[in-house]
Parts: sequence; structure tokens; C-alpha cells
Amino acid sequence: MTEHDAPTPPAAAGLSRRGLFGLAAGAGVGGLLVGSAATAGVVAASSANQASAAGVHPFFGAHQAGIMTPVQDHLHFAAFDMMAGATREDLIELLQDWSYAASRMTQGLDVSATGAVGGSPEAPPDDTGEALGLPASSLTVTFGFGPTLFRDGSGVDRFGLAGRAPAGFDALPAFLGDDLDPTYTGGDLCVQACADDPQVAVHAIRNLSRIAFGRASLRWSQLGFGRTSRTTADQQTPRNLFGFRDGTANILADDEHALRDHVWVDATAGPAWLAGGSYLVARKIAMTIETWDRVRLSEQERITGRAKGSGAPLSGGDEFTDPDFAATDAAGATRIDATSHVARAHPVNNAGIRLLRRGYNYVDGNTAIGRLDAGLFFLSFQNAPDRFVTVNKAVVTDLMAEYLTTIGSGVWAIPPGAAEGSYVGADLLA
Amino acid sequence: MTEHDAPTPPAAAGLSRRGLFGLAAGAGVGGLLVGSAATAGVVAASSANQASAAGVHPFFGAHQAGIMTPVQDHLHFAAFDMMAGATREDLIELLQDWSYAASRMTQGLDVSATGAVGGSPEAPPDDTGEALGLPASSLTVTFGFGPTLFRDGSGVDRFGLAGRAPAGFDALPAFLGDDLDPTYTGGDLCVQACADDPQVAVHAIRNLSRIAFGRASLRWSQLGFGRTSRTTADQQTPRNLFGFRDGTANILADDEHALRDHVWVDATAGPAWLAGGSYLVARKIAMTIETWDRVRLSEQERITGRAKGSGAPLSGGDEFTDPDFAATDAAGATRIDATSHVARAHPVNNAGIRLLRRGYNYVDGNTAIGRLDAGLFFLSFQNAPDRFVTVNKAVVTDLMAEYLTTIGSGVWAIPPGAAEGSYVGADLLA
Repeated sequence: MTEHDAPTPPAAAGLSRRGLFGLAAGAGVGGLLVGSAATAGVVAASSANQASAAGVHPFFGAHQAGIMTPVQDHLHFAAFDMMAGATREDLIELLQDWSYAASRMTQGLDVSATGAVGGSPEAPPDDTGEALGLPASSLTVTFGFGPTLFRDGSGVDRFGLAGRAPAGFDALPAFLGDDLDPTYTGGDLCVQACADDPQVAVHAIRNLSRIAFGRASLRWSQLGFGRTSRTTADQQTPRNLFGFRDGTANILADDEHALRDHVWVDATAGPAWLAGGSYLVARKIAMTIETWDRVRLSEQERITGRAKGSGAPLSGGDEFTDPDFAATDAAGATRIDATSHVARAHPVNNAGIRLLRRGYNYVDGNTAIGRLDAGLFFLSFQNAPDRFVTVNKAVVTDLMAEYLTTIGSGVWAIPPGAAEGSYVGADLLA
Repeated sequence: MTEHDAPTPPAAAGLSRRGLFGLAAGAGVGGLLVGSAATAGVVAASSANQASAAGVHPFFGAHQAGIMTPVQDHLHFAAFDMMAGATREDLIELLQDWSYAASRMTQGLDVSATGAVGGSPEAPPDDTGEALGLPASSLTVTFGFGPTLFRDGSGVDRFGLAGRAPAGFDALPAFLGDDLDPTYTGGDLCVQACADDPQVAVHAIRNLSRIAFGRASLRWSQLGFGRTSRTTADQQTPRNLFGFRDGTANILADDEHALRDHVWVDATAGPAWLAGGSYLVARKIAMTIETWDRVRLSEQERITGRAKGSGAPLSGGDEFTDPDFAATDAAGATRIDATSHVARAHPVNNAGIRLLRRGYNYVDGNTAIGRLDAGLFFLSFQNAPDRFVTVNKAVVTDLMAEYLTTIGSGVWAIPPGAAEGSYVGADLLA
């Protein structure tokens, strides 16, 4: 982040100055002097010298960044709830303020023009400062709307949005193996911050959380490392904490057909405000890694359906060879067990459904009995929640499920990207 | 980590083959086939082609790596307790097995010669596999011995080591601001794993924890990111979660005089087995960052004693200018408050004591009221625990202390490095 960035031209058509002032006046954060920031307006993502800088992903565009962006190595994910008594206007202003801040942070700038050290010495800085001097680090910030934003747990339509909810949009159904902890589940809003540097991702969530003060509060959050998927052909397929390659057959960012068919919500399929958007599913999946580690190699491979070293399907070939579920061994048994993870998850066994996965490994310290509190923070984007449901129903009864417990869950509608000078969700809330 | 590395020459003078077999036979991990690994012996750190590889720090040497090694960006720290009934022989074999594994992992190799995928398919792999294909990533693994290893909480000398304990070596005294949680405090043994890639650091702790099975168990552990110090002149001083540069005046790795005077235990000062070693202090310091963020900039700077942007002392100059605690402003007040953090922590106000700091930021999700559960995982190396005590007594009453609560703590004697073919702690246990 730069300590002193040049003022940017006013361009805040859709960004209410009132919203940004509201940050200081309405939320009780007396010292947040963002007036000058609001006047300066959003940073133009198309600014040639900045958009071309290494590690800078434009915030504005047809789709939100952080979906088909090459997966970064670090995650800070956060779910927020609107505070009791918050109004529709509060929600709009929050999304405006968040979009403004994200449009700056994703370019390596402080959260406002005065930032961490450019404001009055007699006021708290707008920016918390721990990313001062760090580059943009490929930061992406992706916002989503949970089912409860449209109708809360009691069915109350707090923000006049119930009529605009996607048909049937609700919390995911219960799955076998779920042991959901409410403190890792749900949320009116979600923010996925991904970056090459965890300090940059944490800085983004921290500052967005601070901006939300008085309007929305952090419900739960999760740090992750060691991405478990690849979204570009030149990214090596990473390994999950079972030691296996994960995400070999993921949708790649340049596969326009797959993105169209599996990820982006079509204009004809859902509410108009969601066209070009997607749905994000998050699943916090605890892995009993110590138990897994005592399973013999051949059984680990049978469970997975792939070789541990190469990642090749057990039917042969290399990592990127299509699995042949009909191939048999000398004894006539299928080489890939029909209840293996790869068999159960594969599109050919799920009506062709593919998910764009963007998950991360996590380690949250250890349990009281000295086991690592570790697992997979699964994230996937798909153009309908029921497509995730179909695939997940298949995998929760696969051979691997014995070693997994899902302890957190959420689904959010991911609106399309904001037009320059507008904000994420404008089409929903306008 | 390489999947198939060439056999290395036998050189396991100090590494008991029995110890490595003991891993399989004694610890109940039936399938850990490490016989061939034991035969192959440790990997020669002086092997020219490996020691010169980028991101490889030799495990063997006069001092343990991970102290004056340039600070890596990621930490997984773990404290272990010996299990009830474990014998001195168990402890010796554990340290041998740990040294063997660390000597391999720090070179980017699997934890044993058969590793993740080179063993029998009918046995659990020796290596958990999530670092397969990843480079050494500057991994360092640093081992330490806590006061309870010498005498447990009831004063029992479980391992016949009481007579060899450093004089007065005990848990740190209580400090103002301590609110220690036993689940983040103490431990018979500690392992500090630092790497450029968190997956590599996690892989190290996970595999060492697995090797310890039946002999020692994980007591607590901590992941950290965003190192809060620099140990080489070319490392930019990072920022802590208060947004300030931290570690500006740290001891640098090439400052032989400072290392000699402040870090390494002198042969005349302590037990002979600790000569060339050090003491590690870990403090898990929760920071009330939301409260801090509402403090006006001038007050943040007064509390710290430095400018937030540049890191320069408030007495003037740049980041690396020595603070002038006598300098006064026009009104005659000292420019640096005598109770600021920099004043209280500075060597000139602490009998010249300097600590080699190697701490990290941490974020462990959030609290139930929606605040980030975040802070500083402080790590420092010094040649006597009471030198830390002196400095810490000064800083726990500084202006910053109001925003800090220490929730975890530990001190460990850090033996010198192992000679090639030997193991860490050999001089203590021989």
C-alpha cells in the first residue's frame, strides 16, 4: 500500500458521498474522516499504469474478481450479519463504502485517500496501516448476499428484498456428515479476500469489518493457506492435507464455455440483478488427518481414486488423463472404486455438473487431545446452489467421508461485478 | 519435497537406528517403515549441491537454524509434552528421530527415504504428503527444552535431567497484563518451524507431531504470518497489527558482536551442553485492535514513540536514526514520551539488553462479539531468560500495554546445533 497516493479524479457516480460520510456520522466512529476520500471518489480501475501493474486485479468489471482470477495462495474469508435495526439505506451505504474501499485496496492503495498516515493527527487514521508499503499482492475482494439478507431466520424482510430473492434461495439442506457449528455457518453477507500475502488479505477483512462498524458485524471468519485448486493451466495442482493433489479437473479461468455453462448465472435463469454473477458455497470440512495418516497407501489411493504421487486416476495415465470408470483389473474389478472420491465427484456421474473450486487448507491450532485442528475450507462457485447439492450428496457417502466432518457451511449469491463508479449489488438495491 | 530422492550415504553416528525403529515398534504406529530410512542415515548438510540450493538452510551446524536465519514469512510453532510413562530413552530417540526428519525436510525432502509414496502400498506412508513437489522454502526447524523437561510441575525428575538444568531455569514470572491460558502456555519441548510457504511449515509440525506419537503429544500450537522483525539489513521492516513498523532495531544476523553479547549462551555462563545455544521466549499477545484503531494518530504515535508512516523516532530522523530520549519540543517536553513503547523497550533504558526478535502476527478467526482474535506471537532469543524479564517488566507498564493482554507464554532452552550425524540435545542427554 502506498503511504501517499496522488488524488484520483472524482468518479463516484454510484458511490453516495452520504454513504461515506455515514461511516463517520452514523456509525459512531467519530474520527473516521472520510469526507475527502468520498470526494476523491473511487479509483479508476482502467487507469492504465495501475491496471497493468503486476499483482493488480481490477475491482470493477462484468464479473467480480476472485472467481476466475488465478487462485492466490492465501485467504481471509468473513461472514457478516447486518446489525439489529440496520436499514436498507445502511445496507446500500455499506456496500458503497465497501466497494470504494475494495477498489482501492485491490490496487495496493490505502482504504481511503488519507489512508493510514495522511489524515489529521488528531483523528484515528482511516486505514489500520499494517499493509503500508506492501504491494497489491493480487488482492481480490468478492462480496456475496446470503439467504438471510432477503428473509431473516424469522422470515422478516428487513431490507425490502424478499421479492427479489432468487427462487428457492435458502440455506443448504442438511447433508450426511454435517455437524454444523453455528459460529461457522451462515451470514447475511460474505467477503472472500484472497491475496499472495496473508497480511494483505487480513488487512482487507479488518478494514472492511471496521467500515461496517455500526451497520454489520463480523459473524465468523476463516484464514486459509495452500490453495487446493488451480484455475490456470500454468498453476501446479496443489495438495490438500490428505497429501493428494486436489482440483486437477477444476474449471480453468480461460475456459469460457465451462464458465458460461457452470459458473455464471445466465440472464434467463435467475433474477436480472444476478446475471453475470454466481453462487458461492463455503464448507468448513474438518479432516481427521491423524487417522488418515495411519491408513495404508493403497487404501488412501482406493479411497481417493487417484495415485498419491502423480495424481493420475487409478485407471492409468497421468494426472490429466480422464478417469476410466469402466477399466478393470486382472480380477475383473473396476480399477477405480465406484465409491471412491473421484468417482462420486466426477461430472460424468453427476449429470455433467462441474464446480469452480477455490478452496484452501486451514489449521486452527490443535484440539485438547493434541490433534491438529485442520481441514479443508472448501469454496466453490456454481450457477445454482442445487448443482452443489447434487455433487455434495454424491460425495458425502464416498469412501473418504469417513475422514471428514463438515463443521461450517454457507451459501451466498454473488452479484456481478460493479461498473466503474458504481458498487457491488447496485442492481439489487437500486 | 521430492518424491524419489537418491539414497544418501550412511552417516548416522549419533542417530540410533533403534530410535527410528522404535518409532514403528514402540509407538504403536505399526506401519511406519523407517528401517531403510535409518539405514540411509541423515542427509549430509554439507552436500555441496544441496546446501547451495536456493531456500535451503543447513540443519546441522554450530547453532540451530531458525535463530539468525533471515526471518521467513510464515510460522508454525508447537509445544509438546512428553507422555506419561515416557522414559529417558524415549526422549533420546524422539530427539534423534526429530533431528533426522528435520534434517531431511529442511532440504526439501520427504520425512524419510521412502517418504510419502516410496514405501509399501500396504503400509501407511512415512510422510503425510502435502509438501510433495514443494521446494524447501527456507524451512528451519528449531527445537527447545522447557523447564518442565528437567523437573515437572510436581518437581519430579522424569528423565534424570534435573542436575543438568540451567541454574534458576523456570517458567517466566507473572507480569502485569498476563492473563495466561494454560492451553497456550508452557510445554516440555518446543518446535519452531519457519518457512516461506505455510504449507511447508505446517507439514513439518504435522510430521514431527506424528513421529512423536506415543512419546510426546502436542500441547499447543500457533500459526503466524507477516513476520514482525527483520534479521538482515535487506529485509524491509515489517508492520505489526497496530500498523507500526516493528523490529527496526533488531539484532541482525551478521552482527557477530551482538549475537555473542546478547543471543548465544557463553560456555562460561551456563551448563556446557547449552554453550552456543540460546533461550527462546514465546508470548502470545492479544491486541485489542478495534480499540487501537479508534485512537487518534498522534496518540498512536505518542504511545509507540515512533511515526506511523516512516517508523522514525519522534525525536526525528529516519527509521534507523537512534531515538534521542532527551530531545525536547518547543514547550520543553521530551519529544519521545518516557513511557512510550520505544523508550521502555530500548536497550539504553534496559542496561543495554537487546533481544533477537522473531515474532509473527496472528489472526485466529474472531471472538463471539465479532472482533478479530488477533495479535502478536512474540518470539525472542536471548542468552538468559532474565534478560527478557528485565525488558518485559519495563514494557508491560508502557503506554501500549493498555491495548495488550498476554494470553500465552513459554520459555525454552535452545541447545546448540547438532553436529552432522548427531542430534539436537545430544550433549544434554549423552
